[in-house]
Amino acid sequence: MKNFKYMWSTYLSKYVTVITVGCSSYFLATYVERSKQKLPPERSPIFSTVLAATPLTPAPFERSKNNQSRISEIMKYGFPSLDNVRSFDDYVLSYDRRTRVAHWVFEHLTKENIKFNESVDRSKCEFQPDESIHPYFRSENTDYKGSGYDRGHLAAAGNHKSSQKCVEQTFVLSNMAPQVGVGFNRHSWNRLEKYVRKISKLHNNVYCCTGPLYLPRREPDGKNYVKYEVIGANHVAVPTHFFKVILFETTKGFLELEAYVMPNQVIEDSTPLSSFQVPPDSIERAAGLLFFDNIAKTKISKINGKKI
Amino acid sequence: MKNFKYMWSTYLSKYVTVITVGCSSYFLATYVERSKQKLPPERSPIFSTVLAATPLTPAPFERSKNNQSRISEIMKYGFPSLDNVRSFDDYVLSYDRRTRVAHWVFEHLTKENIKFNESVDRSKCEFQPDESIHPYFRSENTDYKGSGYDRGHLAAAGNHKSSQKCVEQTFVLSNMAPQVGVGFNRHSWNRLEKYVRKISKLHNNVYCCTGPLYLPRREPDGKNYVKYEVIGANHVAVPTHFFKVILFETTKGFLELEAYVMPNQVIEDSTPLSSFQVPPDSIERAAGLLFFDNIAKTKISKINGKKI
Repeated sequence: MKNFKYMWSTYLSKYVTVITVGCSSYFLATYVERSKQKLPPERSPIFSTVLAATPLTPAPFERSKNNQSRISEIMKYGFPSLDNVRSFDDYVLSYDRRTRVAHWVFEHLTKENIKFNESVDRSKCEFQPDESIHPYFRSENTDYKGSGYDRGHLAAAGNHKSSQKCVEQTFVLSNMAPQVGVGFNRHSWNRLEKYVRKISKLHNNVYCCTGPLYLPRREPDGKNYVKYEVIGANHVAVPTHFFKVILFETTKGFLELEAYVMPNQVIEDSTPLSSFQVPPDSIERAAGLLFFDNIAKTKISKINGKKI
Repeated sequence: MKNFKYMWSTYLSKYVTVITVGCSSYFLATYVERSKQKLPPERSPIFSTVLAATPLTPAPFERSKNNQSRISEIMKYGFPSLDNVRSFDDYVLSYDRRTRVAHWVFEHLTKENIKFNESVDRSKCEFQPDESIHPYFRSENTDYKGSGYDRGHLAAAGNHKSSQKCVEQTFVLSNMAPQVGVGFNRHSWNRLEKYVRKISKLHNNVYCCTGPLYLPRREPDGKNYVKYEVIGANHVAVPTHFFKVILFETTKGFLELEAYVMPNQVIEDSTPLSSFQVPPDSIERAAGLLFFDNIAKTKISKINGKKI
């Protein structure tokens, strides 16, 4: 009996060793491989003359460390494009280094998260350059000064009043575009932003994508030209138009989509918002983007209020 | 003695088992983790109305399967940007879906690889749309027809005459931009391309980046405007200028850089190429790109022929 116990314990100890070594090696390799993926890409000093010491992706201000699940929530239905994507606590942005204006910003709005937190004070917010963008491509407050244009929010400040930090993050200059102030940013564009908040109170989960357009126009010579102003020393592009595409979930589990394009100019306050609705693919073609790429089209029941 | 041998063999067999299991588990986990990374991203049908069944990244024609090491060679000193990168057998391209023209193309030229292979026949090459680009953003031959512009190569056909396949791949429309024909594409721009080939015969390893620019101009109202024509149903942008940045290794182990910008217009044939030289960072700022980002700037001994 003793002998049996002894054999058994030897037998057991041998297999325990083998299993322990096997599992440890497996998990070690998994850890090594995953660590490799998490390593930041090695960067040598940049070639360009000025700024060998400039850190390339510092946070412009403190961001929450664990906001990955929030980003997944915001981008649930797909990224419109993947160029220079930057994430903030409550919105995501893709930056166009050539125009110094975002390609798009993406927000996820619900009844709860657009609620106004009384401790939030918008007047304490300051417009600030986005230091995560290389200085060659970064817009500055001085670019807007004297230009005649507002620093117009793409992700609206009014959508992110749940905390002081969230609203402050909408004041970074990579979230701004030069907008006509009176008659546009402060009026009709603002009407559209308020409408989106109204939709967010009526429906579950509103996904909102906003961005600039640089649309061509036919000139007297019969040819089509894209023409836009650039302002300041950094040549920040003044978009000819802005778009907003919203997707919301109805109580019946369907998805509805609305797409708007507004010219960056004085708009009569009485013009109904519906007159700015356009087929979403016209924005996709003009902007070089694909919206809500993760949705099977059969799931969308209405576009611009019309059944499809 | 026999007993010793027996013990030794048991001892050995136990450790061999442990080591074998350990190593196998490690390599199994490594394999599992790496396989996960290689999986293509899952794509649902795209939202946009037309083309749920369109494959998003097919090869426009057969590419070599094992050209990863060639790509590493071409891109040795860094990617200027990372938007929609496409690789061909002998050059790499980043596509701008908004303008329907590449952001940049990158080539690596040596004495050997620019040699003319006598079996290569350029006249057999046909301009063809790049089917790896989504149809919304793809330029077509019909866009150029009647526009008055040439389908101008960015990666020059003359740099890729080592095989019929390589030269054919330069005829894909994503490698084209609308260029003024007589006086530009067929003359001064061609002079610049020939100069790059001359440099490739004199030096080891020439890295050549070529792309379009859309430069602003001051108008009589004192403001700066970017203005460019767009052609065809797909609104292919006509760049105002083109750039070429070349980096070459001298026999002494130094790196020299030259940067050129040419307006997309008729240029007098007698204008010396050196008069189109510009500081490389002026192109970086205008194009939203960073060239040769992997090089410590101390390694570059000359820019535009001048010691730095």
